[in-house]
Amino acid sequence: MCQLLGMNCNNTAAINFSFTGFAERGGRTADHVDGWGIGFYERSGCRVFHDDQPACTSLLAKFIRDYPIQSRTVISHIRKATQGEVSLANCHPFQREWQGQTWLFANNGDLRQFQPALNGHYLPVGSTDSELAFCWMMQRLREQFDEWHRPPTWQELAPHICAITSEIARHGNFNYLLTNGEAVFAHCSSKLCVLHRRHPFPKARLVDCDVSLNLGELNHADDRMAIIATEPLTAEEDWVPFQTGECKVFVNGEEVWRHVNASTVRFPMPTHSTGRVWANPAVSV
Amino acid sequence: MCQLLGMNCNNTAAINFSFTGFAERGGRTADHVDGWGIGFYERSGCRVFHDDQPACTSLLAKFIRDYPIQSRTVISHIRKATQGEVSLANCHPFQREWQGQTWLFANNGDLRQFQPALNGHYLPVGSTDSELAFCWMMQRLREQFDEWHRPPTWQELAPHICAITSEIARHGNFNYLLTNGEAVFAHCSSKLCVLHRRHPFPKARLVDCDVSLNLGELNHADDRMAIIATEPLTAEEDWVPFQTGECKVFVNGEEVWRHVNASTVRFPMPTHSTGRVWANPAVSV
Repeated sequence: MCQLLGMNCNNTAAINFSFTGFAERGGRTADHVDGWGIGFYERSGCRVFHDDQPACTSLLAKFIRDYPIQSRTVISHIRKATQGEVSLANCHPFQREWQGQTWLFANNGDLRQFQPALNGHYLPVGSTDSELAFCWMMQRLREQFDEWHRPPTWQELAPHICAITSEIARHGNFNYLLTNGEAVFAHCSSKLCVLHRRHPFPKARLVDCDVSLNLGELNHADDRMAIIATEPLTAEEDWVPFQTGECKVFVNGEEVWRHVNASTVRFPMPTHSTGRVWANPAVSV
Repeated sequence: MCQLLGMNCNNTAAINFSFTGFAERGGRTADHVDGWGIGFYERSGCRVFHDDQPACTSLLAKFIRDYPIQSRTVISHIRKATQGEVSLANCHPFQREWQGQTWLFANNGDLRQFQPALNGHYLPVGSTDSELAFCWMMQRLREQFDEWHRPPTWQELAPHICAITSEIARHGNFNYLLTNGEAVFAHCSSKLCVLHRRHPFPKARLVDCDVSLNLGELNHADDRMAIIATEPLTAEEDWVPFQTGECKVFVNGEEVWRHVNASTVRFPMPTHSTGRVWANPAVSV
């Protein structure tokens, strides 16, 4: 499987501290070595960085760890290939435009017998089940909001995204982060948790490496942020696990919507090869 | 206006040398200080780097100058805002997916009274005439090749791209690079040139900074590459100007197709403000 990291804030913040711990899981504290990616929504746009090298040794990941990009929304992913070879085209987050907004999607899961009827609006570039699911979700949203001349609000989107998710999650574990920069839509089949930070900010300590940070010195009293991750990134903070089937929406650093799809189940984890899978579209481990 | 740089090769190559000279134009040897971007097609996928800082001082540009990414196709752009504010969303190259391929587009021009009828397949995220033109081109190609179940070849695409270009170029200077990673489509209204490199490779000297490189030491006898740029990047090499209205296609490092749109004219250069234009959608200089 893979690991997810997301951040949604009311004011801009730099994710360097969380990303420093997260990137350790890309080969040092965990074996998610098959590439990584991170997407930032900044005041003036969105940009995504990808690499097919392990996050713990990637020179680009080192650059990102040391370069404070001020964002209100970030999603990141480190990959352990389950479907699709190790390649840049298979690194999350995936990116598509809809209604003049850039949407990003990152997924931790493993979908089986999942062959949606894509109509060509969005087609996968790579060979992962994740990008296929993303294309299917975006296609369904386009159909749902066909003829609209403005982007739907998160309130209008959330029930539909949650319903589409319920259908896809029948095919396997489907933990994801989906965002248009304003709202982060998160879903859990098997493993995802969230931490809400606000004043008074603690001194936080990463669990993946020996780094601590006094967050009170960096944040203002009115700053609010939600950090979403596959597994807690820090010790001694109140990470709350998602339930199986739970969809949540985060806007301005707060949880603004939730629903639990009762039909969603947690699938047993697949058995993996531990080696890297190099470019061979036929291989799926 | 802006500056363009493109590379198309038969084998992978690193563009660091050319990009080093090119980035100097982003604030040092020229005043294209309103952001920059570069997109690489590597063996395993495509990735794009953007920054709204001047290329000559951007830390990300420094990282790219020092980090050899092996690619067969690269397009890059440094921006001097003519339409649209200085923002990440307005940095080229722009990116869209069609038929499971990532398309990139970078433009040097200035289109006026250009209001194409977009149907929503592709909509601009930012506020430039360039991204609008890209969305219109991609929409027209989708319509032309509707119902196709495979990506068209460059031979199938070239006449249509050239015809759409002719229509758009009536609205102003429209120098661009468009690519799906395999073929680079280039058009010139006012300024663009190309250099073909092959064995024996020279010792090349940049015109924008005091850097020379013995290309023979880096390339093999069978390497071929086309470098396309707004203005020559090196001295003492045979840069060939495009004609006004000339469309060319480059594949595997060679020019494989050309056509001149006789109706295309070179427009007078607009008068610019020399200051930076910060986020204000109403401003267009």
